[in-house]
Parts: sequence; C-alpha cells; structure tokens
Amino acid sequence: MKTSQLYGGIEAGGTKFVCVVASDPGRVVEEIRFPTTTPEETLQNSIKFFQPFVESGQIHSIGIGCFGPLDLDPTSPTYGHILSTPKPHWSNADVLGTLRRALNVKLTLDMDVNVAGLGEHIWGASRGLDPSLYLTIGTGIGGGYIKDGKPLIGMLNLEMGHLRIPHDRELDPFNGSCPFHRDCFEGLASGPAIEKRLGVTGAVVPEEDAFWDIEVEYIASALMNYILTLSPKKIILGGGVMQREFLFPKIRQRVRALLNGYVVHKNLLETIDQYIVPPALGNRSGSMGAVALASLTA
Amino acid sequence: MKTSQLYGGIEAGGTKFVCVVASDPGRVVEEIRFPTTTPEETLQNSIKFFQPFVESGQIHSIGIGCFGPLDLDPTSPTYGHILSTPKPHWSNADVLGTLRRALNVKLTLDMDVNVAGLGEHIWGASRGLDPSLYLTIGTGIGGGYIKDGKPLIGMLNLEMGHLRIPHDRELDPFNGSCPFHRDCFEGLASGPAIEKRLGVTGAVVPEEDAFWDIEVEYIASALMNYILTLSPKKIILGGGVMQREFLFPKIRQRVRALLNGYVVHKNLLETIDQYIVPPALGNRSGSMGAVALASLTA
Repeated sequence: MKTSQLYGGIEAGGTKFVCVVASDPGRVVEEIRFPTTTPEETLQNSIKFFQPFVESGQIHSIGIGCFGPLDLDPTSPTYGHILSTPKPHWSNADVLGTLRRALNVKLTLDMDVNVAGLGEHIWGASRGLDPSLYLTIGTGIGGGYIKDGKPLIGMLNLEMGHLRIPHDRELDPFNGSCPFHRDCFEGLASGPAIEKRLGVTGAVVPEEDAFWDIEVEYIASALMNYILTLSPKKIILGGGVMQREFLFPKIRQRVRALLNGYVVHKNLLETIDQYIVPPALGNRSGSMGAVALASLTA
Repeated sequence: MKTSQLYGGIEAGGTKFVCVVASDPGRVVEEIRFPTTTPEETLQNSIKFFQPFVESGQIHSIGIGCFGPLDLDPTSPTYGHILSTPKPHWSNADVLGTLRRALNVKLTLDMDVNVAGLGEHIWGASRGLDPSLYLTIGTGIGGGYIKDGKPLIGMLNLEMGHLRIPHDRELDPFNGSCPFHRDCFEGLASGPAIEKRLGVTGAVVPEEDAFWDIEVEYIASALMNYILTLSPKKIILGGGVMQREFLFPKIRQRVRALLNGYVVHKNLLETIDQYIVPPALGNRSGSMGAVALASLTA
C-alpha cells in the first residue's frame, strides 16, 4: 500500500454516514458526517463531498462499508443494492450504482462489519494477526472474519449474529427480539433486545444491575462458538452495547470459564486481556476500513 | 496432482488403522486394516506395510489423518504427538516421530476430520466446492473446514464439536457427557452421549423412537451455526451416528425451519437434499483423504 496515496472511504451506517479522504489514520485530509435520511439525499451528500477530489484527480478509488442486508453477488441484477430492510426508504436502494453513475472512480462495496474488520486488521487491534474477528454488538449483531488479509465469504456472506445459543428462560424469560429466529444471539443480546426487555436503553442501565450477567453469558457463549469454529488470533468487540467498558473483563472471565481449559493457548490462559479487546481505531474502524478497502482494490 | 503417482495414506482412528497405497480412489494398489492396540504395535504394523513400497521407491510421501487431540504446532517440542487422551496407552504417543524414524519418506500429519474433509473435497461430495465442511458425529464430534483447498487453521485447529447450543431440559433432562463442557454439542449428540442417555447404542434405537427428534434438534442447531459462521458450499455428515440414514431428511428439514428464510440461497431453499449429504467416499474419506494430503504436500 502506498501510504502517500489518498483514497476515499464511506462508512454507510443506518444512523449516519461518514465520508473521508485519507491515506491512513494519521493522515485524514477531509472528513464529513451527516445523518442517514433518504437514499437520494444521503448518497447525494456523499457525491458532493467526493466530487472535487475526484475531479482534481486526487483520488481514484473509494471504498464503502455499508449496512445491510446487501446484494454482494456481482452476477446479480441487483448487485450493490440494499435488500429488504426495516430501515424506511432503503429497501432496494441502489447504493453502488448511484455512486458509480455520479463518480468516475473505482468503487468497492462490502458489508460494514467486513470493512471495519479490515480497518482493524490493517491499522488497528488485529494488525498483523490473521485470522481475526471483528464483532459489532449494537442495533444488530454482525461479524467480519478476516482470513488471508480479506473478509471471508463462502456460499454467502457470514451472518454470525444469528447464532443459536443456550437461553435459560428461568433466568431470562424474555422471548427474544429477532423477527426471524426470536431468541438467537442478536435476538437476545443486541441493543434493541436490551431495550425491549428492560424498557430502557442499555446505556442507562447501571453497572450493578443483575441484567449484565445475562448479557455477558450470551456474548461469552457466542464468543466461545466463534473461537471453536473460526479460531481467530484476536477478537475485537465494537458497537453501541460494547461502549459499556466494564463488560470486557466480565466477558473475558466468562469465556475462559466456559471453555474450561479445552482450548489450550496462552491467549486464553494468560493474555486474554489482549485477546478480547475494543477496536483500536475507536469509532473510525468503519471509515478507515473503507479507506483500506479502497487501497487494497485500487 | 499427478494421478499416476502412488502415495501412502494412513487413517489413524481410535478403533482401527487403515493403511493404503493408492493414486486415487479408482486405483488402490494395496490396503490393510488392523485394530488400534498399543502405539508400539499399531505403528509397527503401519511401518511393516509401507516399508516395501518405500524401499522400492514406489512411494515418496505418506499422509496421515489421526485422531486427537494432536500437537500440530511445528515449533513445539511435542509436535506430531497425541496429547492427553482418554484412549489407553495413547497419551503422549509420538505418532509422527515414530513413523519418521522408520520410514525414509516425506510424512505429513493432520487431524482426522481435516483429512477426511480434504478427501471429500478432492474426490468426493464437495469436489470443486470451496469452502466446504466435513463433520463427523460418532465417538466424538469434530469438523474440518476446507477453504482455498486446504483445512483452515487459525490460532489453533478448529474444535467445532464443542459448540454451545440450546438445550431444553424439559424435553431432554440428560446433563450431557462432555468432561469439559457437559452439555455442549458433543456432550449432547455424540454416540457416547446417546448411549449414556438411553442405555443402548444409537445403532439399535428404532427409527420411530421420539429420541431422534431431540438428536435432530441438536445437529440442526449446530449446522445452523456453522452455516452462519463458515458459509460452506457443501456440508458432509459422516461418523457412526450418521449411519442412520433416516436422520438426513429430518436434519435438512429442521435446518431449513430454524433458518426460517434468513439465509437466502437455493442450496437451502430448493436443493437442500444435495447440500447436506453423506460422504461420497463412504468409509474411505479418511484413507483417501490421507492419500490426497500426501499428494498435495509431495
């Protein structure tokens, strides 16, 4: 990667868009943030931001990390569209096509979690560690698994937020909030699941509340499953729920207890504090990941 | 791969060893099977079988798919040893070293499930499909995930038999048989778990027995999790429990019901009969996989 070269990056989230022109996290030439309204308005704002950099020849490539579900099959007629989503106005929005028609540069699109995982892999907490896992626990739960320097895609993109995990209904009678699976991981542990269960957002639930042990149990169960099936060298937990930093030591302790000595590696036995960590790029994993995506595909 | 070239393959199982000299499943020059007794006797039997082929220069490479847990870290002083195992005599057995000292050929060792998955990927049910998943449900439960033509290894080998999955104790009060995790997937659904629960081996439990719905629920839950985290293009189910062929349609139906339309792909919606399948190589996935391993590393 030529670090002097500038690239465009779009973190296209369901709440806000972040557009940057940068070469790396230490050199961000320009950045803009605006709320996600209609596809027309939001994509037009993005186009206006990048247009001068494209016309002056300063950038030749833009990466996009977008919320989903996305059609990422290049042979599909709706490639680059958002598929059916509860987010008003955005079902069937042609994100990639709209940007391509307006901006004469190479544009590359991937799922938000894949792109954030890539950002952390290139410049953040999982730098030089392959494979690695980036998980977001917020409005939804999703994960990007970086293997051989790029997000793993199989038959389809990974959808690891919807794991089936143990749910003790005596401890937690909540039925779950996932419209597809009810009490899958996302249905039990996402931000909306917390809010639906407790009537308030997780941001205001006190650290001492007994609920957090339940939340920790779900997150630790899912992490145990990811460790057994994906064996990442680093696990990065981002997203709104993980803003509550006191959760990290509880999760680490519970993962170790659940594995019960089965996976014998110093990352779990001795240095688990450095194994399950917050994003090193903070709230810039997504936008800088988009820059990384642009640079890798330029 | 030169199909005319001969290779050695060892399926080193906890019950029996299978040694073959072959170029591919259509050309097996010689094959021998013997029970797994002590490491000394069993490995000596393997050496005797291969010695003439090695001395005559007919084979230059032998692949080994071995039961575990194995030390597969080449930098470890116990590389190629079996680690702590309940199998009498085999804890700390130096499988690779013993064979290397006796046979002047290239020897390559991997986990039994990785090797069987490789055999199916080269010549069997997942031929040409990447990534693919081979799962054995028998004395233990384990999986090999073939990605970019080789078994995926991360921080360590995958141990996907020990997933945490929902366990409804009203339907199935059995506590689970895993010494590490009690009611993980292996602890609930392996052959020994069935036998401990019912008092008889699964082989003699009638097809109509209500227990099979419980078994199917566990297998389908685990497969759903593998689909969401690994997105394989083919899932192959081998091992003793899966000898009961009536389980396949029940498992397919339940996987589809659990996913509930969430993963939109024709493999799940239309052609699931060809997506979740028995091994095409039958009981030769392991031995032919070992031949494939030898040929790939020759």
